[in-house]
Amino acid sequence: MSKTSRRDFLKNAGTYGAATGIGLAGGFGLATPEAVLAQAAHPFGYPEDGLDVDVTRQIGYDGFKGISLPDGTRHSGCAFGTFNAIIGQLAQVVGAPYTTIPTQMMDWAGAGVVGFGTLCGTLNGAAAAIGLVCDAGDARGFISDLMTWYSESPLPTNNLAPTGDLPQSTAASNLCHVSLTHWCRESGFASGSPERAERCSRVSGDVAAKAVEVLNGGALGLEKPAEKTPCRSCHYMGPNYAMGQFTHGEMNCLTCHINLKEKKVVPTGH
Amino acid sequence: MSKTSRRDFLKNAGTYGAATGIGLAGGFGLATPEAVLAQAAHPFGYPEDGLDVDVTRQIGYDGFKGISLPDGTRHSGCAFGTFNAIIGQLAQVVGAPYTTIPTQMMDWAGAGVVGFGTLCGTLNGAAAAIGLVCDAGDARGFISDLMTWYSESPLPTNNLAPTGDLPQSTAASNLCHVSLTHWCRESGFASGSPERAERCSRVSGDVAAKAVEVLNGGALGLEKPAEKTPCRSCHYMGPNYAMGQFTHGEMNCLTCHINLKEKKVVPTGH
Repeated sequence: MSKTSRRDFLKNAGTYGAATGIGLAGGFGLATPEAVLAQAAHPFGYPEDGLDVDVTRQIGYDGFKGISLPDGTRHSGCAFGTFNAIIGQLAQVVGAPYTTIPTQMMDWAGAGVVGFGTLCGTLNGAAAAIGLVCDAGDARGFISDLMTWYSESPLPTNNLAPTGDLPQSTAASNLCHVSLTHWCRESGFASGSPERAERCSRVSGDVAAKAVEVLNGGALGLEKPAEKTPCRSCHYMGPNYAMGQFTHGEMNCLTCHINLKEKKVVPTGH
Repeated sequence: MSKTSRRDFLKNAGTYGAATGIGLAGGFGLATPEAVLAQAAHPFGYPEDGLDVDVTRQIGYDGFKGISLPDGTRHSGCAFGTFNAIIGQLAQVVGAPYTTIPTQMMDWAGAGVVGFGTLCGTLNGAAAAIGLVCDAGDARGFISDLMTWYSESPLPTNNLAPTGDLPQSTAASNLCHVSLTHWCRESGFASGSPERAERCSRVSGDVAAKAVEVLNGGALGLEKPAEKTPCRSCHYMGPNYAMGQFTHGEMNCLTCHINLKEKKVVPTGH
């Protein structure tokens, strides 16, 4: 759970200008990691009054469906939708250096990364935006809460429902492939249906809105559901192989591991 | 497979300056998506001589282990490792506007997103870097190739092996949780062992290096392995629910779906 209060978070905003004053000595060559990092050690800032949650939801929704740029290129999809909804607004409210961030930089994360069905693109886009706005430690807390909220909440919220309410489902996962499959099974709509595309448009709006709610408030304050991390009770992460392997995983384990013992994902000892 | 040649890719570089000349009219308010996007429609550019693949591998490796910033903050992990290895170097070689990108913006993506075990952080960090460097369409092609290479290649390469060679494994997935589990089972090293951490350091270097290889060459040119997308032969993505659901997924399906028919992930019709 995120511990940072909004006050703590905001007091660190606005330090960007000083940070960018650090020179980049050395030019091209064998860049040392320390030298590489001497560019911007602090976040860009965030308006003290926050961003409007519902406006953000609308921009996220519209961004999924597609937006034409002045130069004629068109951008769309879930990850673009959430990233653009947040960073695009900050470019207007805060200005530089958000104005130097091309909001299509996260286009690739749509459909679980170029169609691979891994991490839901709405989360990837929103998390990248949070990563730009916040200190790295704060970002981790906020994103953890956002991931849990996404996995355990009925979505879409239908808070923006231009064509009527859609059925909801609980993803029980942060993966595009699993999230979509659960919604299709719950709703009875096909994966290639206009309703499924509309569902993802609304989820883009919902995730962008929730991310801004997090940023405005400083923390979601979610308690982790007790049933979300069963593997911690039967897996071990340490140097003894025979005790079993934890390997990172905060998602709802039992969504994939229908019968952990039967699947024998770890060999012995637990 | 990516079709863009290096020449096509590079000829689009260097247009950033003109793009940023677009004014941001409107100030704060109900930002329209079109207005939000009027900030930077083009990539930042890439040096014609490319970046050094082996230097990038070293920076990615070191970044995983941890780097102290001049202000005393410390950054580490797989996603920081790959993103910093690429964008940090470009800040030195190309300069602005890469200098305005805080390379810790992708810290959160480590361990499959703040420990959730989803998308491998090395891929998330490298993909975000590619998304900044390339036009969105090119980025999708390059990242698709990178995702496939990661899933189907024995890693770590041990091209950088300061403490001797480590066992290799094929992830057969783009997920942190699956990738780590496969390596632990293949190697016999525990998930909490120093060897596993060393493996992830090396994979951070390898993925950063491969991403730069992609960017230098313009395309990986990988053919998709025939066995990688079995679901396309038994799933259907269209408006008819009864025909079955595809839902996005370019990963190796059978890594998770050990017995597709038994798991009944789609109800009928195929």
